[in-house]
Amino acid sequence: MAPHETLQQLSALKVSASFLNTSTIIALSVFFTLLCACIIIGHLIEENRWANESITALLLGLCAGGVVLLASKDRSSHLLVFNEDLFFLYLLPPIIFNAGFQVKKKQFFKNFTTILLFGICGTVISFYLISVGAFSIFKKMGMTSLRIQDFLAIGAILSATDSVCTLQVLSQDETPFLYSIVFGEGVVNDATSIVLFNAIQSFDFNNIDGTVALNLLGTFLYLYFTSTALGIVLGLLSAYIIKTLYFLRHSTDREGAPMMLMAYLSCILAELLNLSGILTIFFCGIIMSHYTWHSVTESSRITTKHAFATISFIAETFIFLYVFMDALDIDKWKASNARVYTSLQASKLLKNDVALSRCHNSQLELKCLVRGAVTIALSYNQFSSSEDTSSQDSAVMITCTIIVVLFSTVLFGSITKPLIEAVLLRHTKTLDTDATDMQSLEDLRILFLENGENTDQGSNQQAAPRASGLRLLISYPTTTVHYFWRKFDVKFVRPVFGGRGFVPFVPSSPTDAVDEAS
Amino acid sequence: MAPHETLQQLSALKVSASFLNTSTIIALSVFFTLLCACIIIGHLIEENRWANESITALLLGLCAGGVVLLASKDRSSHLLVFNEDLFFLYLLPPIIFNAGFQVKKKQFFKNFTTILLFGICGTVISFYLISVGAFSIFKKMGMTSLRIQDFLAIGAILSATDSVCTLQVLSQDETPFLYSIVFGEGVVNDATSIVLFNAIQSFDFNNIDGTVALNLLGTFLYLYFTSTALGIVLGLLSAYIIKTLYFLRHSTDREGAPMMLMAYLSCILAELLNLSGILTIFFCGIIMSHYTWHSVTESSRITTKHAFATISFIAETFIFLYVFMDALDIDKWKASNARVYTSLQASKLLKNDVALSRCHNSQLELKCLVRGAVTIALSYNQFSSSEDTSSQDSAVMITCTIIVVLFSTVLFGSITKPLIEAVLLRHTKTLDTDATDMQSLEDLRILFLENGENTDQGSNQQAAPRASGLRLLISYPTTTVHYFWRKFDVKFVRPVFGGRGFVPFVPSSPTDAVDEAS
Repeated sequence: MAPHETLQQLSALKVSASFLNTSTIIALSVFFTLLCACIIIGHLIEENRWANESITALLLGLCAGGVVLLASKDRSSHLLVFNEDLFFLYLLPPIIFNAGFQVKKKQFFKNFTTILLFGICGTVISFYLISVGAFSIFKKMGMTSLRIQDFLAIGAILSATDSVCTLQVLSQDETPFLYSIVFGEGVVNDATSIVLFNAIQSFDFNNIDGTVALNLLGTFLYLYFTSTALGIVLGLLSAYIIKTLYFLRHSTDREGAPMMLMAYLSCILAELLNLSGILTIFFCGIIMSHYTWHSVTESSRITTKHAFATISFIAETFIFLYVFMDALDIDKWKASNARVYTSLQASKLLKNDVALSRCHNSQLELKCLVRGAVTIALSYNQFSSSEDTSSQDSAVMITCTIIVVLFSTVLFGSITKPLIEAVLLRHTKTLDTDATDMQSLEDLRILFLENGENTDQGSNQQAAPRASGLRLLISYPTTTVHYFWRKFDVKFVRPVFGGRGFVPFVPSSPTDAVDEAS
Repeated sequence: MAPHETLQQLSALKVSASFLNTSTIIALSVFFTLLCACIIIGHLIEENRWANESITALLLGLCAGGVVLLASKDRSSHLLVFNEDLFFLYLLPPIIFNAGFQVKKKQFFKNFTTILLFGICGTVISFYLISVGAFSIFKKMGMTSLRIQDFLAIGAILSATDSVCTLQVLSQDETPFLYSIVFGEGVVNDATSIVLFNAIQSFDFNNIDGTVALNLLGTFLYLYFTSTALGIVLGLLSAYIIKTLYFLRHSTDREGAPMMLMAYLSCILAELLNLSGILTIFFCGIIMSHYTWHSVTESSRITTKHAFATISFIAETFIFLYVFMDALDIDKWKASNARVYTSLQASKLLKNDVALSRCHNSQLELKCLVRGAVTIALSYNQFSSSEDTSSQDSAVMITCTIIVVLFSTVLFGSITKPLIEAVLLRHTKTLDTDATDMQSLEDLRILFLENGENTDQGSNQQAAPRASGLRLLISYPTTTVHYFWRKFDVKFVRPVFGGRGFVPFVPSSPTDAVDEAS
């Protein structure tokens, strides 16, 4: 056989050798190459105070989208069509689970009332203000094809803050109180806007009466309560199973699997029952880190803790890439093409509107307007899956949303870190204390007292005398409840489900790990 | 608002609250519930010598498939249609990567010649015997619609052994030599049959001449060489990046991500270039455990080692469930309905044929005929994606394959463990040595000497005098190459890419971990 024959044979083979879907392989190659690039570049510019991985992913995504757009001339630029299933079923759950798993539970539950108040009320107020604002703006601009439902949806969509991006900037160790509040509020906020969005989509807006608000409230409470309960039940179930089955014969490679699977199962079951998968998996994560995590071997603890964080990190980066590669989708821009100016103006007005609506909450200045992936996902759902996809107004809404997310991520994402650093630095200098352990706590207390907000933290010792009427009412029941819960937990719950102090002592067990529990 | 109104509202909401794809959610719920059940039941019956997780998954999958079949009456039972993309792009890569990552490299490379010989020659002989056998059997049974290509495909399909199932039974620590041979041969075997299958699918069988065999050989060598090279290059690239970038500022949550992503990227790139993704990711795994793994922090090492094992374990269980839930697919069985007897007879004959073809290799008696997931995936590809899906003969081929896999998994899967135990026990009793460390090695040596096969292991000390002409020729070059490679590695490669001894010393670094390297 001559060599050129072999080559000919090989090149013939190249066309048909792989029996897999070529477009999937190309898309995966591009995405994974970009993911690697994001992580490496993000790591290189980590020291830079204005940048973070979100912004890197965003810019890389936009660049890649642009390249693909130019390469494919005038066809569509999206390699993978934006898919809500992919987003809500595969990418978001690991992020939220990891958030629940890694959260400092003591902080989180001590500030639970505050978090719920900020989370739910903040979102509802934002929702109301943005909806009304959008209604007046778009009516003024003559976009009449939008229904009232669309305006409410815009409100719900833009009320979702981006906890992902914010958390990359804040550090749980340096600023524990701020982290727990911002983070907890972020999760509650995301969940609230998804619940709101679901409720709006399922409502019949043709015959509105006074009970709409009450109905929404009822739906709300139902979804919140059942979702949380499901998460807790499945978390406890996993704790019980692992404690009972694996008690005497630990195997690290086998222990991680049921934890991962049951966490994901909780999310999927919640979706199956039409509950909020995000809330469920969040509480499942909290329960797992409080009970299940203590029943496994030391290496399993290290593995699960870091593996969950890694998976969450990959999913976050992927979301940013994915969303912004799709942002240049030429079809949408073409549809709103005739109105580029209108679109820009509308999004500018919307942004101001959003900014206005968020200003009710001075503490959240820090996280500001970082609207992210959840927003875009909801926006696609509302304005592209309906039958009027080609309508100009819907396209304008999608492009507006993308512009708002783009600007807020780049602008506010990059000022958050310097802002926090500046605030912390200023107070560190002013105080000049030697007790470095207490330093950041002290800073934060001052930071929040200035913002007219009590810290809750250590409120039963130092901060209590400073607290006034309303603050006492908010902070004391929490502390009391927390005290009795702890007693109950140690006496009844931990002996059954495991937890710190109720598993055989393992020497050199890591103490600085997830178990900041109480 | 009356309470019943709220309930009404809620039930109305239930229909449309979730904007996600309901069938996906149902399928995911079923699969993840079954996965959890598999792992828990598999763990409970771990002590049972006749069972293992593969068989549990298989039986559970069949039961679940049956339940779904009954529930959906006469519609199709497959919740998720068997999808080659899912299988070859998402489920198989983590398993093979983990295999490469965890393999004892010293053992593997010392026995490299043996592994390649057994793997490639064994598969080619199996392929030839099964193809010829199938041709004569099916021609005799009057199934004339099958082309010559189909018989060759059947040969390639049934030559793939199931390394997954075998490895669950063998232990790397108890029987290191056997493990490295069986395992290495399994990977080479799987890769060979996939390459063979690809080659067959792309060949034009209308004008066959004498160069077919040579062409196949050329394709073979090309695919093997380039795939391996790609895996090595990407593995080294990851080592270099992690060593350079993360050298001074280690962050466990960030280190795992590039390792995982670059491993997957190697597989996807190989598929993109029409190479064998399995071979590429296998060698990438080996390189990563030899270099990259040593450049990360201690907790990253623990995390990656166990996380890869866990993900691989989940993927394995998922494959078994997935394949066998689909096995009861009523459409296929209906198509071959008229010939249930024929089908059974054909598969019985095929099985004998397969058994015969494997008997050339006495050592592999142990792994015998455990044909698994790769076989079924290839079979679907050949006989269901073509235009003649509805043809009876194709359906018979698919059902035959499923029957062969079913029987071989249940039968040979359950006798492997007792067989090994019996062999080991017998020799332990016979020898009655006190040197427990050497015991299993000694057993194995005797085991393989009895099978007419030299061990290679320690061949430069004790075994060398026993070795005869041909054996010396095989074992000595390997040892020499290994010696020089080691010198070269320590002098030139490790200083650039990292590796044991070339990273800063970390106290209490785990020594019994993956770095059995050399």
